[in-house]
Amino acid sequence: MAKFTVGVDMGGTNLRVGGYSADWQRLAFVAVPTRVSEGPAVVLADMAAAIRQVIDECGGVAELEGIGVGSPGPIELPEGRLLQPPNLPGFHALELKTELEKLLGLTVIIESDANAAALAEAHAGAGVKYNNDSLCMLTLGTGVGNGLIFDGRIWHGFRGMAGEAGHVSVWPDGIHCTCGNRGCLELFASATGIARMARETAYEGRSPRTRALIDRNVPVTARDVAQFAEENDEGALIVYDTVGRALGLSLAALVNTLNVPLYVIGGGASAAWPLFAPALFRELERASYVYRLTMPEDKMTFTPGMTNVVPAVLGTDSGLLGAAMVPRYQR
Amino acid sequence: MAKFTVGVDMGGTNLRVGGYSADWQRLAFVAVPTRVSEGPAVVLADMAAAIRQVIDECGGVAELEGIGVGSPGPIELPEGRLLQPPNLPGFHALELKTELEKLLGLTVIIESDANAAALAEAHAGAGVKYNNDSLCMLTLGTGVGNGLIFDGRIWHGFRGMAGEAGHVSVWPDGIHCTCGNRGCLELFASATGIARMARETAYEGRSPRTRALIDRNVPVTARDVAQFAEENDEGALIVYDTVGRALGLSLAALVNTLNVPLYVIGGGASAAWPLFAPALFRELERASYVYRLTMPEDKMTFTPGMTNVVPAVLGTDSGLLGAAMVPRYQR
Repeated sequence: MAKFTVGVDMGGTNLRVGGYSADWQRLAFVAVPTRVSEGPAVVLADMAAAIRQVIDECGGVAELEGIGVGSPGPIELPEGRLLQPPNLPGFHALELKTELEKLLGLTVIIESDANAAALAEAHAGAGVKYNNDSLCMLTLGTGVGNGLIFDGRIWHGFRGMAGEAGHVSVWPDGIHCTCGNRGCLELFASATGIARMARETAYEGRSPRTRALIDRNVPVTARDVAQFAEENDEGALIVYDTVGRALGLSLAALVNTLNVPLYVIGGGASAAWPLFAPALFRELERASYVYRLTMPEDKMTFTPGMTNVVPAVLGTDSGLLGAAMVPRYQR
Repeated sequence: MAKFTVGVDMGGTNLRVGGYSADWQRLAFVAVPTRVSEGPAVVLADMAAAIRQVIDECGGVAELEGIGVGSPGPIELPEGRLLQPPNLPGFHALELKTELEKLLGLTVIIESDANAAALAEAHAGAGVKYNNDSLCMLTLGTGVGNGLIFDGRIWHGFRGMAGEAGHVSVWPDGIHCTCGNRGCLELFASATGIARMARETAYEGRSPRTRALIDRNVPVTARDVAQFAEENDEGALIVYDTVGRALGLSLAALVNTLNVPLYVIGGGASAAWPLFAPALFRELERASYVYRLTMPEDKMTFTPGMTNVVPAVLGTDSGLLGAAMVPRYQR
């Protein structure tokens, strides 16, 4: 049998485990619900069982190159200790690495889910397509994840907490965030934020379509809001303009600070790229003189040697694939 | 004779050239006014003459390890091409490296002045004192410079323009900056910004001491404002509270994004550290959950293993010394 690696995507809803060949073809896959309410011990046991199944399907421990686990943050790395993860209530201070290694009898490497997604884009997505191994990724999901890849490797910072641009203020006098700060990017560019802003426009009488959902007691999703915007719903258009402006301001800060060549926007809510990209580029061009000095003539078209902002190339499986890549590209 | 390196600090007011031993003792020094109004050719000729004099005083070209030049930004690196430097009007597109090498017949390495200062702090200042080779430095001068040192080396980004946190918005709806953006850190934490804010408080009737200077047609300096704050002038106290809040917000973004262990505040205006540090730490703690998870028990006391914000250890010569270090620690 050939060498393989195992990736684990520990989401708040689903636990997904994949086995991958040396050239990142998926060989095996298991998905089970994340039983968060039953506590960390049950989730860890489910995870260990799924990992063992994938290892068996891929040919057994003898050919296993390594196991990477992508976890919601914040998380201390390389220790793999969870710190009050908002999407995994009750999991504070969980020693994910130590406990999982005890159950498996195998070494595992823990990584933040956003870093794993960025690693996958670097080595099998945008980084490959655009021939570039330094990038900054923003993942628009329930929250806004952030991963930095410098010269093909994850930039962790000294406690593994680098890449928390989702909790940097874009409007510091804005609404309060669960992180304690105000006006965080995450409040305006996550799926959760999009749904909240759409409800606000509905209450203001500017989104008849969102209003209709609310009146029927149907939860509003970012996907709904995107569809409403495509149908020219005023409130929904305002929401996606705000998404773009928030991302543009955040990218202006990242471009001025890091000056990496490639910025990748991924996650489920990035499917609405055509709706928010115009405001994103308008704001980025206005707020970052470094971007203006290095922007492509057509900002929407990748241009080598310039600062490029592109939608993610991989789909939502990038977190799983990236977790599997962690053993190969670890620190 | 022993090996030596030459550093050049190309300021908007003075050109300073120093020769340094292998352990960073200064062996020779020349300073001349920067004749900006006479154009780049005259400044380059003055610079070449001063460099030659320092080389001669240190023992001649045979023992020269290298020449580093710290220049105001923005500047394309490693090419050493100036891009509309606000403090050097008429120097846009100057090929500093190429032209200086032609005059000298020697290789020179160009670096931004803020990066050079950060390099000096890393290898002879805060980085040595606190035993740490990754840091982020903010230099509070006419503008606000920024330098990033990762593992002992300057982080340049792909076009040499990393470290422009001075032009990241802290209040994005704030006043306009010459860079085109609004509410940049530089507007609230530079010496220029401090003087402007003090004049504003005087016009509002809240700074009798600043008002007295204005009435006598005396230019207001950041140093004056610091003295007035120490004398309990209301407006001056407000100004330094704003300096601290702006720095705290900026540091919150840097801590959340980079997660380096050490942040160094330098430059002339940092002498007022006791005046702005309380607001800085208050705002940083509020706005950055990464900082809260990793802050020292006493935020003003350096604590190994935690996120520390400290005043610079070296004085205003760090830019000159750092320029001399560039040949040794180049990319």
